[in-house]
Order: sequence, then structure tokens, then C-alpha cells
Amino acid sequence: MLSKGKIKLVQSLSRKKERDESSLFVAEGNKIVSDLFPLFRCKLLLATSDFLASHSDWQAEEIVEVSRDEMERASLMCCPQSALAVFYKRDYTLQKDLLPSRLSLMLDAVQDPGNLGTIIRIADWFGIKDILCSENTVDLYNPKVVQSTMGALGRVDVHYGDLNSLLDEMKGRISVFGTFLEGENIYERELPSCGIIVMGNEGNGISSELSKRVTDRLYIPSFQTGEGCSESLNVAVATAITCSEFRRRRVGL
Amino acid sequence: MLSKGKIKLVQSLSRKKERDESSLFVAEGNKIVSDLFPLFRCKLLLATSDFLASHSDWQAEEIVEVSRDEMERASLMCCPQSALAVFYKRDYTLQKDLLPSRLSLMLDAVQDPGNLGTIIRIADWFGIKDILCSENTVDLYNPKVVQSTMGALGRVDVHYGDLNSLLDEMKGRISVFGTFLEGENIYERELPSCGIIVMGNEGNGISSELSKRVTDRLYIPSFQTGEGCSESLNVAVATAITCSEFRRRRVGL
Repeated sequence: MLSKGKIKLVQSLSRKKERDESSLFVAEGNKIVSDLFPLFRCKLLLATSDFLASHSDWQAEEIVEVSRDEMERASLMCCPQSALAVFYKRDYTLQKDLLPSRLSLMLDAVQDPGNLGTIIRIADWFGIKDILCSENTVDLYNPKVVQSTMGALGRVDVHYGDLNSLLDEMKGRISVFGTFLEGENIYERELPSCGIIVMGNEGNGISSELSKRVTDRLYIPSFQTGEGCSESLNVAVATAITCSEFRRRRVGL
Repeated sequence: MLSKGKIKLVQSLSRKKERDESSLFVAEGNKIVSDLFPLFRCKLLLATSDFLASHSDWQAEEIVEVSRDEMERASLMCCPQSALAVFYKRDYTLQKDLLPSRLSLMLDAVQDPGNLGTIIRIADWFGIKDILCSENTVDLYNPKVVQSTMGALGRVDVHYGDLNSLLDEMKGRISVFGTFLEGENIYERELPSCGIIVMGNEGNGISSELSKRVTDRLYIPSFQTGEGCSESLNVAVATAITCSEFRRRRVGL
């Protein structure tokens, strides 16, 4: 039997304020819950009897078997699945001294939860350990971000903070790459194995303040022909192409 | 004054069956409506007075000035904007004889509207004219696809049909590339400027029947380290990286 208090807890975690205060977040769906279970401490697992039967070894502070109806009442999704978990957030500590010897991503006010989730998945794929986000980037623990990471959450450290100060502090010790509408053709220039790749807001790109701190301006050329053209690539797509370009130079042509 | 009949028309076009029967589709949002206006014949434009004032030269079979309240009643979106248009679909004719001299995309049962929309935008960016979709790929005119193309709809021809038959017909005349979990490292091999790139379903990849018709198996290597890993990239992200690899060989390193 699922109490009203638990439904209320889950529902409250759709809001950032409540996630911040409680240090909790929600993940839904059999695959994502399964992927996150080894990585985050679980406060509450709501699951159907079928799901629990096949995951009987799982440890959580509380496990409640729920009916489909109860799951629908608790769920933040339109199509609830067999498992919903409330996990404790993790605290990520940024080790600034490691940044110069790694490739990292920096996100300036990325707003769309699906984009952040996809970017986390891209970072995981390309072996990027740290994502540095401006304070006004969408919250990592937004339920839609969690869903779209497809389990990559927890394998990439996502930090929030003042990006301008961070880059000022790192000045001279690290290359800062940004993609713009003009710059050096990303396909044609050498790219190092370490540095920071800055990606900007969906509508406005990289802020002017942060742009000043970019040391290497790149652009992804378009191959459009004919009249009219897409003005830009989706930020997650641009991130994928940029990461691919940095990484392929370690193996390929 | 917006009639109930018009609201009903717009609402009905959220369903594929009705879109197929009427050959109509809905686009919403100031930017997308503006982008599609020159490309598709408009049956009905619903817009606020502000929007109409700044687009007074637009031609549509019918233009109705609506209040915010009326727009909310008609809209298929959760946050309606100032313009909603009902356009006539276009018929695309596939010129098969041109395929061997072009780079094209083939989608096998891509299900997520956001993925198809993003892939259309990627195709537009990389100068790919034709996308060949299996019959069970999500409908091009699904409102969520239309939204996520960001106006690239209409600059790329999207065809639906039996992909196995098409490839049988083209056999020996065109290279068919597919990305798999094994194959040749996409970063390390030569890639031609023409051919077909096949991308598969979000969960299941390329179907076994279609896989048999792939002439060149590629894979995008991961750079993950440590335990656990993302099993795959999002299909739109994989499409972007693959298109980028094909195209960069025309310019770069």
C-alpha cells in the first residue's frame, strides 16, 4: 500500500527547490533504475511485484510493492513503467588540478533537459569525466535529464559554478575551445587531447563574457547547398561532432 | 472568432490517420511557421494580432486572428505561441537514378519524433537531400517531428517505403553503410562521397533483413574508461557523427 506521503515526496521532487533541499531525485523506468541502482544510494524503491521478483537482491532504505494504479499516481511520467526510485544525489568535487590533463566539457546555460541528458551520454561515450555547467544550466537531477541520460548519469561528474571565475583561475594553463559561426574549420586543424570544450545556450550560443575567455575559436562547417539553410545544429549534435573530432585524432586518419 | 470546426481540424491532425486522409499537417511557433511559410501551401493560419501585424503580406487560404485563449484551445502544444498553421503536405518523388551520385540517409524504424526531427536537421546541415524511411518509421508530419526540425522540414525530401526492395533494386550500384557494434572503425577508413547510410531503431538497431543488404559495416568507437559504459549513442547523435565523418573527408585532414 502506497502512502500519500510517499506520492507527495515523489511529486515534490519534480521541483528543483525540493530536490536541492532534500538532496533527493527521482529516476523512472526499469532500465534507468537498474543502471543507477549500483551508483546511487536508494531511499525508496516503488516497483511492481514482477519487477521486485526479478530484483530481489536489491538494497534500499525502503521498498514498496505497488500496483499499476499506484504507480500511475506516483509517477512523474505520462507512461509509468514498473519501477520508480528515489535516490540520494551525489556530491561531485571538482579537482581543478586534473583539468589541464583531461578533455572536459563546459556548458553555458543549456536549457533543455533532453539536451543535457544527451550531452551527458555523449561525454560518457567519449570518455569525458567532467562537465562544468553554469549556474543557469538546467538541473542535472531534473527528471527529464535523468531519463535522457539513459544511465550515463553517475559515470560523468557534473559540476555547477561560475564558469568565468573558473576560467580566470585556469588562465594560461588550459586551452578553451568554443564553437562559433566563424573560427577555424574543426575538420582541418590539429586538436589536442586535453582542454575544455565550451558549448553555449540553445538560442544564444556562448555568452559574450565567456566568449572572451575562449582561447581557440572553432566552427563546424555546413555542407548545405541551395537556398535557405539551417542556422545551427542542435547543441547536443554539435557537442557530439566536436567530441568526435577531438577524440578521433587519437586513433585515426 | 475561432470556430469549433477549426479547433477540431487542428486537433484531428495530431493523428496520423487524419493527416494521411486530409494531406494536412500542423506547425506551431513563430519561427517554425515563418520558416515553413515559403515552403508549404497554407490552408489555415491562426495567429495573434501582434503576429499578423508583422506578417501582413502572408498568403493563406484562410487567416484567423485569435486571442491567447483561443490559441490555447486550438494548440497541440503545452505552451502555445503566437502562430499556428495548417499546411498542405508535399509529395516527394524519389529519383532513384540520382541515389548513386549522392549521399543519402536511410532510417529503419526510428520511433522517436524528436530523433527524426533532429536527423532531418542534421541531413539539411550536411547537404543530404534524401532520407529514405521504412514504413514503420515515425511520421514526418507528426507535430513533434515538425517542431524538432526547426524549419529544416521542406529542405530535405523524406520518403517512406519498403527499404529491402529498394536496396535489392539498387544492388551493385550503390554502397550501403551501416553502423553496428562491430565493423570497421569509422575514423580510420576511407569513406566515399556517395552512398546510403543506414541508421536503425532506437532499441534494436538495424533489422536483420536490412542488415543483410548493408555492404559496408562501420562502428563508432567509444573512448570510455573504467567500469560500466553506455551501450550505445542516441540514434540522432550517431547519425551526426557518421554524416560528419563522411563529409569531412571532402574538406579536411
